Parts: sequence; structure tokens; C-alpha cells
Amino acid sequence: MAKPERHVFVCMQSRPSGHPKGSCAGKGSVDLFRAFQNAFEARKLWGRFALTNCGCLGPCETGPNVLVYPDGILYANVGENDIEVIITEHLLAGQPVRRLYPSEEIWPNDS
Amino acid sequence: MAKPERHVFVCMQSRPSGHPKGSCAGKGSVDLFRAFQNAFEARKLWGRFALTNCGCLGPCETGPNVLVYPDGILYANVGENDIEVIITEHLLAGQPVRRLYPSEEIWPNDS
Repeated sequence: MAKPERHVFVCMQSRPSGHPKGSCAGKGSVDLFRAFQNAFEARKLWGRFALTNCGCLGPCETGPNVLVYPDGILYANVGENDIEVIITEHLLAGQPVRRLYPSEEIWPNDS
Repeated sequence: MAKPERHVFVCMQSRPSGHPKGSCAGKGSVDLFRAFQNAFEARKLWGRFALTNCGCLGPCETGPNVLVYPDGILYANVGENDIEVIITEHLLAGQPVRRLYPSEEIWPNDS
């Protein structure tokens, strides 16, 4: 196994329906993770990059949340339509996708 | 929320009893994660550092696995007795704990 160039974590935290905090799973992150897996498979990204589901990252209100290390870049409100640009621009070209950033108060991507 | 200085991921992957790959949860990672949470609470590490449970990281045979970013350092066979040294030496002092490294073939921490 090589150390991955970048490691994508997709929050899959689940909460009961109607919970005031909501959750990433409640906003589609289970399907999002599966779509990321399919994209990794289709583009043969395994090995060079890693993809792991995870528990709560904190800012539930802006989920689904996706965190990319070692950059420490958090993406908010991520949908399946955003996977292509995250892979192409960030994972492969090293340019984080600024339009998917949460506010600086939630996660200061640029600091 | 600040961006964490270091982010600790504890694999909590579970597999049925007797599964040939085994799993981190089968080797105590649920209790390990809870002990990490207690240590974060006791030492008031929240905010400066982050702690998240996660799905399979790959090398199930050496679990429980703990991965620390942005360093990209993987620790293998982690037990509750190792939490103190990971916090003191790695999180707080920036010196990864080499005695907890898996083999280079499993995860090349030094590359």
C-alpha cells in the first residue's frame, strides 16, 4: 500500500428524522459516498488516492461534508454533481474547489 | 470552528465474527475511540485537535488502525495504553510515535 496523495473523507453521520442538528446521511451522504466509490473505480484512482467514510465532522448544518487531507480542505453541501470537479481540479490538479467552501467561521480552508 | 492542528481518525470498521479479514472493531476500536474521546475531554484538546471515527482504512490485519492528518501517519495495533503517548508526543509535540508504525509495505509513514 502506498501513502495516498490525497485522502477523501465523506461524513456519513446519521441522526433520527426530525433531529434539530440534521445530519449528512439525512442529506444524501450515503448515496454521495457510493457515487465517490464508483468514480474512484471508473477512473482507477485507488492507490494513488484514498476514500473513507467517517463520523461527524462538526458542521452538520452545511452537510454533506467532505474533507480532503493532507490539505485540510472542507467542502460543504456536496452533491453527486460536485464529485467530478473535486476529482479533476483538486485530487488530480491540486486546485481546491473554492465554490464548495463553507464560510470561514465554519472551517477556515485558507488558513 | 478552527481548522484542527491535527486530526485523528480511528477506524471502527466492523465485520461478522469469523470473517477472514477481521476488523478494527473486532479488535477493540469502539472502546479505543471512546477512550480517545475521554482523553480529548480530560485534556481539553477539542478545537485545537479533532477526533473522528471512520470506516475501513485498508490494512485490517494490523488494526486497530489510527490515522493522523495532516501528517499522514498511520498507527497499527493501537491499544488504549497508547493514547497518552500519541497525544503527548505526536499531537502536542509533533513527534510521531515510531514504535506504533506498521511495516513500510503496509503504510510508508516516512515517505
